[in-house]
Amino acid sequence: MARGDKKTQKLKARVPRGFQDREADDLRVQTAMLARICEVFELYGFEPVETPQIEYTDALGKFLPDQDRPNEGVFSFQDDDEQWLSLRYDLTAPLARYVAQNFETLPKPYRSYRFGTVYRNEKPGPGRFRQFLQFDADTVGAPPPVADAEMCMMMADTLEAVGIPRGDYVIRVNNRKVLDGVMEAIGLSGDENAGKRLQVMRAIDKLDRVGINGVRQLLGSEGRTDESGDHMPGVGLGEPAIERLALLLSRNESSALENLHMMWGAVAGTENGAEGVQILDEIRELISAAGYNDGRVQIDPSVVRGLEYYTGPVYEAELTFETVNEKGEKARYGSVAGGGRYDGLVARFGGQQVPATGFSIGVSRLQAALTALGKVDAGKTAGPVVVTVMDRDQIPVYQRLVTELRTAGIRSELFVGNPKQFGKQMQYADRRGSPCVIIQGADERENGTVQIKDLIEGAKIAASIDSREDYQALRPAQEEVPVGEMVAKVGEILAAHGLEPGENGA
Amino acid sequence: MARGDKKTQKLKARVPRGFQDREADDLRVQTAMLARICEVFELYGFEPVETPQIEYTDALGKFLPDQDRPNEGVFSFQDDDEQWLSLRYDLTAPLARYVAQNFETLPKPYRSYRFGTVYRNEKPGPGRFRQFLQFDADTVGAPPPVADAEMCMMMADTLEAVGIPRGDYVIRVNNRKVLDGVMEAIGLSGDENAGKRLQVMRAIDKLDRVGINGVRQLLGSEGRTDESGDHMPGVGLGEPAIERLALLLSRNESSALENLHMMWGAVAGTENGAEGVQILDEIRELISAAGYNDGRVQIDPSVVRGLEYYTGPVYEAELTFETVNEKGEKARYGSVAGGGRYDGLVARFGGQQVPATGFSIGVSRLQAALTALGKVDAGKTAGPVVVTVMDRDQIPVYQRLVTELRTAGIRSELFVGNPKQFGKQMQYADRRGSPCVIIQGADERENGTVQIKDLIEGAKIAASIDSREDYQALRPAQEEVPVGEMVAKVGEILAAHGLEPGENGA
Repeated sequence: MARGDKKTQKLKARVPRGFQDREADDLRVQTAMLARICEVFELYGFEPVETPQIEYTDALGKFLPDQDRPNEGVFSFQDDDEQWLSLRYDLTAPLARYVAQNFETLPKPYRSYRFGTVYRNEKPGPGRFRQFLQFDADTVGAPPPVADAEMCMMMADTLEAVGIPRGDYVIRVNNRKVLDGVMEAIGLSGDENAGKRLQVMRAIDKLDRVGINGVRQLLGSEGRTDESGDHMPGVGLGEPAIERLALLLSRNESSALENLHMMWGAVAGTENGAEGVQILDEIRELISAAGYNDGRVQIDPSVVRGLEYYTGPVYEAELTFETVNEKGEKARYGSVAGGGRYDGLVARFGGQQVPATGFSIGVSRLQAALTALGKVDAGKTAGPVVVTVMDRDQIPVYQRLVTELRTAGIRSELFVGNPKQFGKQMQYADRRGSPCVIIQGADERENGTVQIKDLIEGAKIAASIDSREDYQALRPAQEEVPVGEMVAKVGEILAAHGLEPGENGA
Repeated sequence: MARGDKKTQKLKARVPRGFQDREADDLRVQTAMLARICEVFELYGFEPVETPQIEYTDALGKFLPDQDRPNEGVFSFQDDDEQWLSLRYDLTAPLARYVAQNFETLPKPYRSYRFGTVYRNEKPGPGRFRQFLQFDADTVGAPPPVADAEMCMMMADTLEAVGIPRGDYVIRVNNRKVLDGVMEAIGLSGDENAGKRLQVMRAIDKLDRVGINGVRQLLGSEGRTDESGDHMPGVGLGEPAIERLALLLSRNESSALENLHMMWGAVAGTENGAEGVQILDEIRELISAAGYNDGRVQIDPSVVRGLEYYTGPVYEAELTFETVNEKGEKARYGSVAGGGRYDGLVARFGGQQVPATGFSIGVSRLQAALTALGKVDAGKTAGPVVVTVMDRDQIPVYQRLVTELRTAGIRSELFVGNPKQFGKQMQYADRRGSPCVIIQGADERENGTVQIKDLIEGAKIAASIDSREDYQALRPAQEEVPVGEMVAKVGEILAAHGLEPGENGA
């Protein structure tokens, strides 16, 4: 790209492809949601920790291809000293690096939570951004099953704390070792079968959409043709293998024990699988002891978490209520959080094997779901009280009025734009959602008063008045009060609209 | 770098050069400080907005050198479509981009605040990181002086809100146009004198350290030799030019009017300069009307903000109290926030000229200053109540005890590590700062009780007991209570130590 060409082009203001700007209402909802998540994590004894946005590429587990710049899914760049740096793509890999680096000084088990931005160098799409937020909790240094069971319960409490009602979600838990056991039993263990295992997992992952018979078709030789006529080829497994997998997938939502019995059958004869089912049974017992076996947390053999690094229990939080999407179709939000055990990640840094388990919340997915549920309390948001400027040479006096309001804790501001057209000031107050404006012209100044115009009440009255003349004659919802009573009167107006002083807009 | 070499090396866990990990106490203090800053900004009627961490390089105002990768001070990398992207180096350039992109739909004036990470691709040093936090507030679409005066007052209120006492800080305000006027008067206007102007500004910037006579020496031909014998060459100005600049710098801390009189003299005969002083006089009047002329906000002709893009009033928040640094020397924190008017930044994107003013808080500098002032209330932080594991097969029962505590809002956790050595569990509780631990062995189980050990009280008693035998016989600060009374008893212990349930550690 030649520099000359660039400079002659007009500079265009645009947010980069796949990134987004976020505005006040959206951010306020997020802030409230994050605070509630924090409270739950703190209640469970987790501590905040923060790692930088940038890590050495090798620490993230991406290995450099023989190319100039490694860009498979991550944003990478070379430092002055030629080391490769990357923007983190999740919060788990940086935690593993942090724990390995500080292993000697951390309390063990180490329970931490982290909130932050992660990056994916991928093709953006609708609702699919290249920068987004995750909120993670992890316990490092704790073997299964206690820490894993706790994660499942904490996920449930977190969803309820942000406003998802009990019954509208389920935490589903499985064990990667169970699936490993079945794979072994049907002859699909070993590196040479990695591709085939992935195909099997993808077929299982479709259980909710295609049902058990659909999965059977996908696992067999013939494959499956869906309603639209699209054909998916089959994995090509034989009947005994399909039977075993079907046993695994014949889940019973109301009976964890029943599911575990089926699993015992599916993994029969494999050590890995038996160990996996045993641990799930222990998780079931812990969940029951704490009372979370009322549908909040369920053993579900169809949970397949995609990430390669999971080594034991895996879990995800699924929203089960239905909403209507933009096309008018019924839709589910599906998974809003998920995680699992990754006993190998810390050991990558050459130290000892350190057991670890944790989950990640997709913050914007969860926020979208709350919005759909009508759980987002945006109605209370109101803007600042605006002190208008009638006479430019009186600005210091208007400034003093604002200072009085602020001293009383009332969110307020002086109109700081060009005051020439008074109508623009009123338009501005409307745009900002101001509950009321303060006006002082020559008459009021002489009387030692201000006019207070209640914009919320005014809008209601205006809607019921027919003619412009009536409106002006009535001067609805406007009142003249002595300057000394301004703060008290504004306080009354805020209270009448259910706004605490200082809570207008905050 | 060959890939093979890399793979055979042991992977080392290390945070990248110039980046840092941040831990719980540090983050908790920061969270509390940010919340207080937010409150002030909201009170003033500002709204949150968030832009992405990544922008198109040209939007940030860095132009591509004819090199492969533009890396002068910013982290940059090329996107799939060959466009250059950069990590933002401040929050002002992205705001200008955002405003230009959304100009039609934003309320005007547009008052916003933003908090976030910024990046500098520079050589790191002690306390000098390549990723750090800024907290900005800006008003776009408002001409001087009202919005500028408001920024100065908001800076003062912000410092007091986070805990800097009145008298320990000063907001100093100047106008870039005043300096421009003086430069013009002494024949240093025009592009050809840009280098010399920079030298003059650097000399002025040293006023606090070298005094007015030192600055005079630096401005003249001879230069200045400091106590250590180091010689700084002079700028080479003649006596009349030095006199004019000295007039500007003869500031009087107790009289804004006096300073303005001196400024009038210094800028005499220049239109730019006169306009600059006029605006400072209006700011003085606004500050007085609001009562901030009590030393909180001062007109100070020596304020030189380095950034090229400032076009009018500039201001900075300086902490004036002294602390003792690591070397035992008295030191001042100096500037913790600063900003000014940048009327040209939005117009870069080809639209109309949009007046704008705002400031940026250096979050970690401010936090360091608060810590030095002893304003950081870290003493109340206590860890979770730990339910220990005496018998592994009783874990579901212990889990139920934790659930009871949490249901009562008490921060608590089950020991989820390897429970084999009981001593390690007690060590862990100590490390976490737990106020108390819950113990249930076979005897207690039979009695339907738990032991509650008050670790805070226990530590006090332990310090006063001489022998190990006495200690064990007394079992200090340990009490056996029925399981049904556990929650109430733990609540009592927390209250006795001044901890609200749920506030232990949060």
